[in-house]
This record gives sequence, structure tokens and C-alpha cells, in this order.
Amino acid sequence: MADLVGKDILDGAQFTRDELERIMEVAADFRQQLREEKRSNLMDGYVMGSLFFEPSTRTRLSFETAMHRLGGAVVGFASASVSSTTKGESLEDTIRTVDQYVDVIAMRHPEIGSARRAAAVAEAVVLNGGDGAGQHPTQALLDLFSIESECGSVDGKTLVLCGDLKNGRTVHAGVELYKHYDCKMIFVAPQTLRMPAGITASLRERGIAVEETTELEPALAEADVFYMTRIQKERFADPAEYARLSGSYVLAREIIERVNPAVTVLHPLPRVDEIAADVDSLPGAAYFRQVKNGVCIRMALIALVMGKV
Amino acid sequence: MADLVGKDILDGAQFTRDELERIMEVAADFRQQLREEKRSNLMDGYVMGSLFFEPSTRTRLSFETAMHRLGGAVVGFASASVSSTTKGESLEDTIRTVDQYVDVIAMRHPEIGSARRAAAVAEAVVLNGGDGAGQHPTQALLDLFSIESECGSVDGKTLVLCGDLKNGRTVHAGVELYKHYDCKMIFVAPQTLRMPAGITASLRERGIAVEETTELEPALAEADVFYMTRIQKERFADPAEYARLSGSYVLAREIIERVNPAVTVLHPLPRVDEIAADVDSLPGAAYFRQVKNGVCIRMALIALVMGKV
Amino acid sequence: MADLVGKDILDGAQFTRDELERIMEVAADFRQQLREEKRSNLMDGYVMGSLFFEPSTRTRLSFETAMHRLGGAVVGFASASVSSTTKGESLEDTIRTVDQYVDVIAMRHPEIGSARRAAAVAEAVVLNGGDGAGQHPTQALLDLFSIESECGSVDGKTLVLCGDLKNGRTVHAGVELYKHYDCKMIFVAPQTLRMPAGITASLRERGIAVEETTELEPALAEADVFYMTRIQKERFADPAEYARLSGSYVLAREIIERVNPAVTVLHPLPRVDEIAADVDSLPGAAYFRQVKNGVCIRMALIALVMGKV
Repeated sequence: MADLVGKDILDGAQFTRDELERIMEVAADFRQQLREEKRSNLMDGYVMGSLFFEPSTRTRLSFETAMHRLGGAVVGFASASVSSTTKGESLEDTIRTVDQYVDVIAMRHPEIGSARRAAAVAEAVVLNGGDGAGQHPTQALLDLFSIESECGSVDGKTLVLCGDLKNGRTVHAGVELYKHYDCKMIFVAPQTLRMPAGITASLRERGIAVEETTELEPALAEADVFYMTRIQKERFADPAEYARLSGSYVLAREIIERVNPAVTVLHPLPRVDEIAADVDSLPGAAYFRQVKNGVCIRMALIALVMGKV
Repeated sequence: MADLVGKDILDGAQFTRDELERIMEVAADFRQQLREEKRSNLMDGYVMGSLFFEPSTRTRLSFETAMHRLGGAVVGFASASVSSTTKGESLEDTIRTVDQYVDVIAMRHPEIGSARRAAAVAEAVVLNGGDGAGQHPTQALLDLFSIESECGSVDGKTLVLCGDLKNGRTVHAGVELYKHYDCKMIFVAPQTLRMPAGITASLRERGIAVEETTELEPALAEADVFYMTRIQKERFADPAEYARLSGSYVLAREIIERVNPAVTVLHPLPRVDEIAADVDSLPGAAYFRQVKNGVCIRMALIALVMGKV
Repeated sequence: MADLVGKDILDGAQFTRDELERIMEVAADFRQQLREEKRSNLMDGYVMGSLFFEPSTRTRLSFETAMHRLGGAVVGFASASVSSTTKGESLEDTIRTVDQYVDVIAMRHPEIGSARRAAAVAEAVVLNGGDGAGQHPTQALLDLFSIESECGSVDGKTLVLCGDLKNGRTVHAGVELYKHYDCKMIFVAPQTLRMPAGITASLRERGIAVEETTELEPALAEADVFYMTRIQKERFADPAEYARLSGSYVLAREIIERVNPAVTVLHPLPRVDEIAADVDSLPGAAYFRQVKNGVCIRMALIALVMGKV
């Protein structure tokens, strides 16, 4: 059985399929358990460091809720402005310090590679909650878990990833997981925000069916899962180009009902207007169920790396 | 018996007298219980979302203390700058997200009606900790509880409300509670900051004795309870007018001792200088006891809406 | 036996040697206990107010971890911007308010004497986590505990304190503790940042051997413990003078290995560059063990002042 005890969770590429299946299984157990009682006592007496050098409602509260639902306690900070970074302390020193206090560290930091640097100096296990434009593996795991929860399995499915695929750490971490499954991926993005060629090439080398397009509707028609992400205005030199593209990447109820009413829609959130509010009440709109899955995945990760399941 | 299970606490106007009496009774029980032991285990395993889009020491720490004294845990944020609002997320989406994590939500937000909007999308019960210039019902409930604790009952009492009665969400929520009791109210305010005419009219229609004045001393002379609030300088076009009025609305020890030494003084706090420091040691200066009552009221509300008492 | 029940912890000068020994003994017990289990239940049901009017990663998280490891809960704020101070509330009123919620208060505030002002109005015990350029007694206690942990006893040792000795609240609080022991102190500082003459004189009057120098190496050669602190650029009128001195007060591995390889190095942290990174792996580099000792000392203080040991 896959053993994750003491392992840092740093990027999507680190997992074997066995490990993914083990994490999904434990997350499903916790989801079931939360339906019956409010929490377990697995982490009773333990303390998690919640170190958010960059603000995040979702990821931070999800990690902290996971720790509380496991019976543990939390210390930390919600922005770098209240950390010793403002006094010129290095990331490594801050981590070594917090490492003296806590049993496990969940962190977000604006620099690529920061979680790996933290893991290199910490005795406590490090869970990467996002390192700049780098990775966001716990989000990828909860996305995978959500696909399985909504669709049964990733095997045999067509996954459409849409939006800013060049800069999106969520999708970069995601494809590293999906590649372990027998699925087809369709990448929908503006030319300037395409999935990096290296990633696409390595998926194809592995024998994964990958298609790329700039058009949303044909991809949606084929999708079992449509994974939407935000396009950020500041990535575009030409405002007219942004207006044209972002406008064509809006998922509205009318389009889904016309093109593919059975599709499952996911989004890492926060959304701005790339999914219209009238989509929310469709049965396939799974992005808030996806949020709840995040708590179960993070409970599973904490419990697994601490050797509690 | 009044049943509050699953009910959002949004404004002062929502309560029946039965409900008020039930809340007061449960709060009194908790106050008694806290004298004997540090906490109960009623909310053991539950998680409260403490969502303060606007800073607040008092209300936030009071809610969080209440949850801890009930044995529960807390996740949240203390200012909007660390929430996803900065990424353009709607209030509704933020609430729907946190709703996946927590069992009950306490929130403060700068916009009128925000708590009601949150309650409309949340499955968890929403406790309004202040929505801009709108309502602040938990403050009103703790004020009522404080009057009862200090004076025995509101029935038969003369309540003086003084300060900015036009904009004060505390007093607006408060009169919605006091109107269920056989009391007399005297409103002391500058002409420009009078209680809105609609509120005064509706109280009179209900048969409540209401008087209005700009003079503090005659009102104080009649008061069983003197409820002071802060006048904010920025409400005045003419600085001289502000200086004149704010100066006449300062409660000093000398005035109380001369005019009405038996009066009970309340204040929602923070105060700036509208109650002089030398008042603090008078037996009727109840505003810090009032703070403690806030924990008991919030314990009562959490326990009642969650069906734990 | 020294009795600290109900005593505020405000400055280094308040302790008797008996009290110091009692605190060290309890801290050592907690350190041993933490090796066996993650926490005690001594403070189960209690709530600590963690009031940081000034940001601090280390001291705040250390206090909060200590409270959690004792089984208690925490409410508070990590910066003044989310407190009622921004509404013009006095420190005293903020403290009186929080005093209604919590059983013990840990605080940091930018003004000298603030902790004493807080203690004057609070019923809860106040633990000073730093009051501006004033005192920082819990840091001094953990420094003492670290010296004893690394060297066996302070009696008979030579302690070198280096850096900004004029403004350093840590060293000011520290010498108030060390003076109870039969030790020698060497103060290494630029002329403009010397230990205040009053402190040096009062130590000599007590019969403590005190030397002062501007040179690091000869002092290091004699040291059992070398306590390094940060020199702040903004204290210097002449940038050239700063560059010269701060450069000469850098502890590098080469110097230690050449001059005194057996020395124990402490630092209150955060460091900038006054201890080179290559020192970290030396056996005598004790500054991260020192951080862990901080949790044990704060557990001891909380438990002692609350009468739980």
C-alpha cells in the first residue's frame, strides 16, 4: 500500500498512481465520516502552522478547517505583512523557526520553488498551498477527487481545461495527475496563453490523447468534465484581444444547455465572470461541491503524511 | 417555547418577545455556568466561520470567545484584505465557499443588507455582526440582556438613547427589541442626527412613549438606563456645530452625581471621550460588564440556532 | 517554593532567583513532556488573548503554540490595523474589553510601559511580549533557559552580549536575570550603542564582573555563551560608521572555528546577516533550539501564573 508518511506534498509530478488512489480513498472515507460526525480526533494535540505569505481565503480556510475537523490546532498568519519577512528575515529562517512550534506546515508563498526550499530546512512535513506561478498540488488533488466524485473515474473520460493554461498553476499541477489515467485532454486557450509546449509534448510522449484549440464550444461538446479557469487581464498587451477572448470564454447556461447539458463543470475559484451565475443551479455545476472536497483531501493529506491512517 | 433552530440572526426586527425571553434565559444560564467552569462542550467538533470584512476587536473576539467557550473551533479572517474579495470575488461566492467548511457563520461587512445576502446563499446559519449602517442585532441583544441584568426588567423603565441616533446601527437594532417592552424611550441627539422619523413614528403607533430632545441633562434626570453612543465628527458640515454638540454630550462623573447618581450607563464601545474616564468607577457604569454579557449572548445564539439547548 | 500565581510578567527585574529556578524547572518538565506526548490538558477550556499591536511571527506564534500545547484556545489580533485602536480607543479600554473575554493576556505593543498599563486595568494576568524599546521578559527567560540547557548552569560562565546594547530590549531584560547568577558579562558594542551606563553601574555595584569593548574577537575568545543581536542601520547618522561596525560584528564560521569552536551561540532572531548561514550547522549554534525553548518557557509561565502546576 502506498506510504506517504513523512512525505512533503510539493508538486503534482511527485505522485504515483498508487499514491493518488490511496489519497482518494482516504478522502472518501473522511467525507463519509463527516456526514456522521463533525470531526475525528486523529490529530488531537497536534499543531499545524498555516503560513500564508500571500492572502487566500479558500486554501487557507480549507487547510485550517481540515486540521480542526481532525481535532488539531492551528497557528499562523494570513499575510506576509504580519510575519518577520518585513524585518528582513529569510524564508528559510522563518520556516526553521515555525518548525520548532508545529507538527505540520501548510504554506502559500509568491515565489516559485518556495515550498521546496521550506521542505529542505523543515523537519515538519510541508504541504504546498501554492508557490507563485509554480505548483498547487492540493488543489490538483481535490480537482481529481472531484472528477471521481462526479463522474466515477477519470479513466475513459474527456477532460477539457480552459482559460489561462500558460500561467495557471492549478492546471499545471492537474495534468501531472491526470496523466496517470487513461483519459483524453483538450486544452482551450488563446494562442498567447496556451499550455506550455513542454507539458503538451510530455503528455503525448506518455501516450495521452491531447488536443489544443482556441474554440470553447466544440471542446465543450466533447467534454465529460469542463475545467474552467480565470483569464487575467494583465497578461494581455492588447486590451481588444483580451476583450475578444475573455468574452468567448464565458460559460453561460444557454451554451451548456445547447451544447452539452450533461457536462460536469469545475473551477478552482474565485471566479469573476467566466462562469455566469445562472450556471450555478445546473446539476453539473460542481464547483462548490469541489470546495467541500478540498477539506476532505486536506484531511486525507494531513492524516497520511502524519501516519494517522 | 420559542424555537430558533436554523434561524439566521439578521436584524432587530425579526424577534418576537418570546424569542427575546428565550435568548435572555439561555444567556443567563451560560453566564451562571461560566462562573463555575471555563466552558461547555456543546459545540465540540463544530467549526464557526468568523468573516470580518471590516475590522472589529470587540464583536469578532466576542463571537470567537463564545465559540471556544462552547468547545468549538474557529476559522476566518479579520479584514477584507486577506479575503478573496481582493481578487474580485462576489460576496455570494465567498459565502458559498466558506459554507462548505463551517457549521455557522458570524460576519461583519461594510454594506447594508450584506448579511441578508449571505444568508440567502448559505446553508449554515448566518449571525450578522454588523452590516454597514444597517443592523447589529447581536449588539442589541446584549444591550437588552445588560439592561435586564442591571435593572431587573425593561418593563416600566425609562431608557435614554444619546448620540448619533441617525446613523447608529446599534440603536436602530435596539429600539426594535425595546418596543416589545412596556418602557419609555427618550432620544437625545443633535437636530441633524435625530432618530429617523419613520422609526419614531412606528414606535408611537405601537403605543410606546417616545420623547425627543437635544438636551442631555433633563433626559439623564429621568433615566433608569442611559445608553450613550459616539458622535462622529465627519457627520458635521460645520466644525463649530460639532464642537458645541459633542461637548454637550459628554457624560462626566460630576453630572451623573449631581443629576442622577442611580443611573445605569451603557455604551456599545469603543468610546472616545463621550464618557469621561472618571465615570468608570461609578457603580452604575456598566459598559464593561456589558462586554462580558456579549459573550453570553453569543454563546446563547450559537447554541440556540444550532439546536444545542 | 516560589509562587507566581496571578503575577503579571512585565519585566526582567521583577524576578527573584527562586522564581527563576522555578520557571526553569517547570519549563524543563514541559520540554520532557512534549517529547512523549503532543500536549497536556492543563489549560483545557481556558482562552488566551493574543494581542499583538505590533507584528511578530516568533513571539506570537510561540505564545499561541504554548497555549494550544496546554490544551487551551486563543483569540486575538496580529496587528493594530485590525484592532479598535484605529477607532481612537485607548489601550486601557481595549484591554478592559478583552479582559471580559479571556483568562490570560499575551501582548506586544510599540510603547514603553504599555504592558504595565495593561496590567493595571486587567483582571487577567498580563504576559509582556515586548513593549517597544522597553522590556521583553519572556525572551529573556527563554534565553536563560537556553543557556542552562546548553551549558548546564549560568553560574561560573562568561556571557558575551554583542550588537545594539543601547536599544535592545532583549539584552536589557536579560541582564536583569543574569545578575542573579555568579557569571561574568562582556558587552560588545559600538561606542554609540553601548549598554546604558546606569545598567552597567548597577551590575558592578552588585559585584558582577562586567567588561566593555568594541572588539568582537577577544570577547568571543573568552565566551562560554555568545549572544548576538541585530544592529539596526537607522540608528547611525554616518553610513560609513554603520558599514564599518556592522561588518566587524558578523559571526562567521571561520571566526568561531579559529577563535572559540566550543562557544554556544544564541540570537533572539530574526537575524539579517550578523550570523552567517554557514554557522548554522556548528554544534554550538543553538538559536533554533532556543526558539523551541521559547514554547516551553511560555507554557511554564502560563501554567504558573494560572496556578496549574
